[in-house]
Amino acid sequence: MSKEITSRKDDYSQWYNDLVIKGSLADYSAVRGCMVIKPYGFALWEKMRDQLDKMFKDTGHVNAYFPLFIPKSFFSREAAHVEGFAKECAVVTHYRLKNDASGAIVVDPDAKLEEELIVRPTSETIIWDTYKNWIQSYRDLPLLINQWANVVRWEMRTRLFLRTSEFLWQEGHTAHATAEEAKAETIQMLNVYADFVEKYMAVPVIKGVKTASERFAGAIDTYCIEAMMQDGKALQAGTSHFLGQNFAKAFDVKFSDRDNKLDYVWATSWGVSTRLVGALVMAHSDDDGLILPPKLAPLQVVIIPIYKGSEKKDVLDAKGASFAQQLKAAGISVKFDDNDNSRPGWKFAEYEMKGVPIRIALGLRDLENNTVEVARRDTKEKISMSMDGLTEKIVQLLDDIQQQMYNKALAYRKDHITNADSWEEFEKLLDEKGGFISAHWDGTPETEEAIKDKSKATIRCIPLDNPQEQGKCILTGKPSSQRVLFARAY
Amino acid sequence: MSKEITSRKDDYSQWYNDLVIKGSLADYSAVRGCMVIKPYGFALWEKMRDQLDKMFKDTGHVNAYFPLFIPKSFFSREAAHVEGFAKECAVVTHYRLKNDASGAIVVDPDAKLEEELIVRPTSETIIWDTYKNWIQSYRDLPLLINQWANVVRWEMRTRLFLRTSEFLWQEGHTAHATAEEAKAETIQMLNVYADFVEKYMAVPVIKGVKTASERFAGAIDTYCIEAMMQDGKALQAGTSHFLGQNFAKAFDVKFSDRDNKLDYVWATSWGVSTRLVGALVMAHSDDDGLILPPKLAPLQVVIIPIYKGSEKKDVLDAKGASFAQQLKAAGISVKFDDNDNSRPGWKFAEYEMKGVPIRIALGLRDLENNTVEVARRDTKEKISMSMDGLTEKIVQLLDDIQQQMYNKALAYRKDHITNADSWEEFEKLLDEKGGFISAHWDGTPETEEAIKDKSKATIRCIPLDNPQEQGKCILTGKPSSQRVLFARAY
Repeated sequence: MSKEITSRKDDYSQWYNDLVIKGSLADYSAVRGCMVIKPYGFALWEKMRDQLDKMFKDTGHVNAYFPLFIPKSFFSREAAHVEGFAKECAVVTHYRLKNDASGAIVVDPDAKLEEELIVRPTSETIIWDTYKNWIQSYRDLPLLINQWANVVRWEMRTRLFLRTSEFLWQEGHTAHATAEEAKAETIQMLNVYADFVEKYMAVPVIKGVKTASERFAGAIDTYCIEAMMQDGKALQAGTSHFLGQNFAKAFDVKFSDRDNKLDYVWATSWGVSTRLVGALVMAHSDDDGLILPPKLAPLQVVIIPIYKGSEKKDVLDAKGASFAQQLKAAGISVKFDDNDNSRPGWKFAEYEMKGVPIRIALGLRDLENNTVEVARRDTKEKISMSMDGLTEKIVQLLDDIQQQMYNKALAYRKDHITNADSWEEFEKLLDEKGGFISAHWDGTPETEEAIKDKSKATIRCIPLDNPQEQGKCILTGKPSSQRVLFARAY
Repeated sequence: MSKEITSRKDDYSQWYNDLVIKGSLADYSAVRGCMVIKPYGFALWEKMRDQLDKMFKDTGHVNAYFPLFIPKSFFSREAAHVEGFAKECAVVTHYRLKNDASGAIVVDPDAKLEEELIVRPTSETIIWDTYKNWIQSYRDLPLLINQWANVVRWEMRTRLFLRTSEFLWQEGHTAHATAEEAKAETIQMLNVYADFVEKYMAVPVIKGVKTASERFAGAIDTYCIEAMMQDGKALQAGTSHFLGQNFAKAFDVKFSDRDNKLDYVWATSWGVSTRLVGALVMAHSDDDGLILPPKLAPLQVVIIPIYKGSEKKDVLDAKGASFAQQLKAAGISVKFDDNDNSRPGWKFAEYEMKGVPIRIALGLRDLENNTVEVARRDTKEKISMSMDGLTEKIVQLLDDIQQQMYNKALAYRKDHITNADSWEEFEKLLDEKGGFISAHWDGTPETEEAIKDKSKATIRCIPLDNPQEQGKCILTGKPSSQRVLFARAY
């Protein structure tokens, strides 16, 4: 019945691709590195987006929209930024096509742009160029603006949701009168992301700061939340950057303070993307399909009638429709699937594949006993429940599933953060156990790079509130004052 | 106090630009033809988008997302489509920049794409290329998919919201088993658009069908809703296309029907864009600023306390905050503006500029009399209202304003649809009265073109359910069986 999925232990990477395709989340497209987000995947993204948008608005942010294109010269204004972003970009050079002598459609050489336009890989430059016109005085600050948009980074190796040339995201860009205020904003948004990922996606994260070499191009500090996937690899789930005055200086954005003194404006930026959909899939699902947390599942409950021929079909249908009505009234997204063309077994497999948190089956025996069969997608446990007070029990069960999914992911992560105190131990852990490895590092980018070259593991972050502890770098033996988290990453 | 706005009678076009800029809806950007949608303008667009999205979902549609880029060759597959769209497009030719010998950032000639990519001006081609993989049998139909996206059309003459190189829109793309079903969908979505524009934007529209020369490139029939602006010019507010089997044939999308016979799939597409924001501004506003219909206004009510020094300031503040609380509980978007830094007169002008439908002023005299002063933005009428039952009265007043704004626009339109029965009359009406002119036309594209050349008026549409009536073409005198609507248009 079920469309076949590669098992996690046979090929984790193929398992992920199978889930995304067969779970109807996304599809490949005719354009290299770009995906199509299918309706079911987009419904999931919409739920994530709407919740994040609410959290941004609750913290005083408003949405706006800035141009897709950025003049090439804008990138050169911030030295680090151009190195980090302008290199692998889609470049618009012409604005017209024409028919050539043979009638074929070709680029019109007469329609060459004076200055090439870059399809935005991120929008700091075009936004700070605009802020220049919006900010004169401290009264214009803070500016707390977010944008939901598509961006393009020309990736050579792409994977559905995790790394695509075009992706959807939000990018917050805020402007402040003081460094302290900007730093507080950076941390506030890191906390918003952590709350969202933990409470809605049911994925625990570690909050930390990136090393200099992993910083956003143009940032003073990059904060991140790091999640652990079921194969022990890390996935960066969101970043929040304290940009200092770098972009204000690059675009000459000054404000007069209360004492009428001119100073450059302080900035932050922060973003999460459709990559989170990939993280959600990888963190929870199993070999039978997706497992979605109730708070984000497009469909939370499916009710399936089990007919035996036409016996009492009308009673089953009426009962099923009535339960659906009650659940809907309680704010639950529910479907009563009375489609006659598919057999129950096929439906069970299909909704398992799609990760619907609760399946309710309703048969003749249930009618006699005043019960229904309730199956949880996360544990595959089946419970016979009395029909009395069903709605309240389902509401409670959805909460339980949400919490248990988080607990399970947290327990896995706890089991997979391990200290290593020598290079041999470090390599062995990486190869045999995986997960995050907490180890001493001498603090130099050279050592960081050497470790990456030898082991393919990167420093995921220096956790916030990291305990200080004397030790020796696992590679060089040089002194170190704290452990940092290493992992192989997506 | 008020930022100055050019008056409509002095310069209608400048009046519009002033409103958009000074009403904080949008701003120019560093990229030719692209605008920045400011937070207030975006909040307005969000309300429009959310309502439309609800109406699409209520009619069974789901959202998805398709790539920004379209391979150049895709456009050539549908002959009319390439003529209509591929010509004025942003073309991506390279995927990398590099530093040249002098260190300047230049396009890397080694990173030239094998096939150029077009930034989507509309997505029929990439979507039908995808549908080919999704549709095999009648069981896969209908596909009722919508996309919210940015698109780019390289416009030579741009105007904020009305015509920009990049704009935001939605594009519905549906696939059906029969021509009848696709035609019914085309009309259904035209009706959804008309309902939205009339009931939410308070702008009356005429539903009609376009002449062959005004059809969407690749459509069999293009249906449209046409609105009239305050200067009598027409603005096309939305289009819904019956595409026949044109795109299915171009992308070889066939399905097997119930009898296992293969046939090409039938298609529709339909879209509205941020252009609607421009229509909203032009249809209702006045020389003091925006006038927004209550159902779409980001802020529906503002409450302004009128202090005399510090006398009873705390009582005024408590009263104002309490009214705001009550209105909010009734689902009204409200702000209590107790900012001490601005004088009431400045605030009045500012909220008038922004088109907030109702302003409530609350002063010492009001406290004594148990009243408030309620000012309507649309008529500028001021009413002294008892504080008792204020919420209910405000809810009612918002409804009244919505209805009266529609009635006013409808009355204007009724006054500005005029029959013309000779060329002289036609030209005179266009130049002196404006509006829509109902006139006979011989039905040929040549005459349509000649009329356009001579008068700058185009056929806006042939209204649905148009009465049949024998007459003579105003230009050629040839026989005609019905009047059509002409106008100069945005």
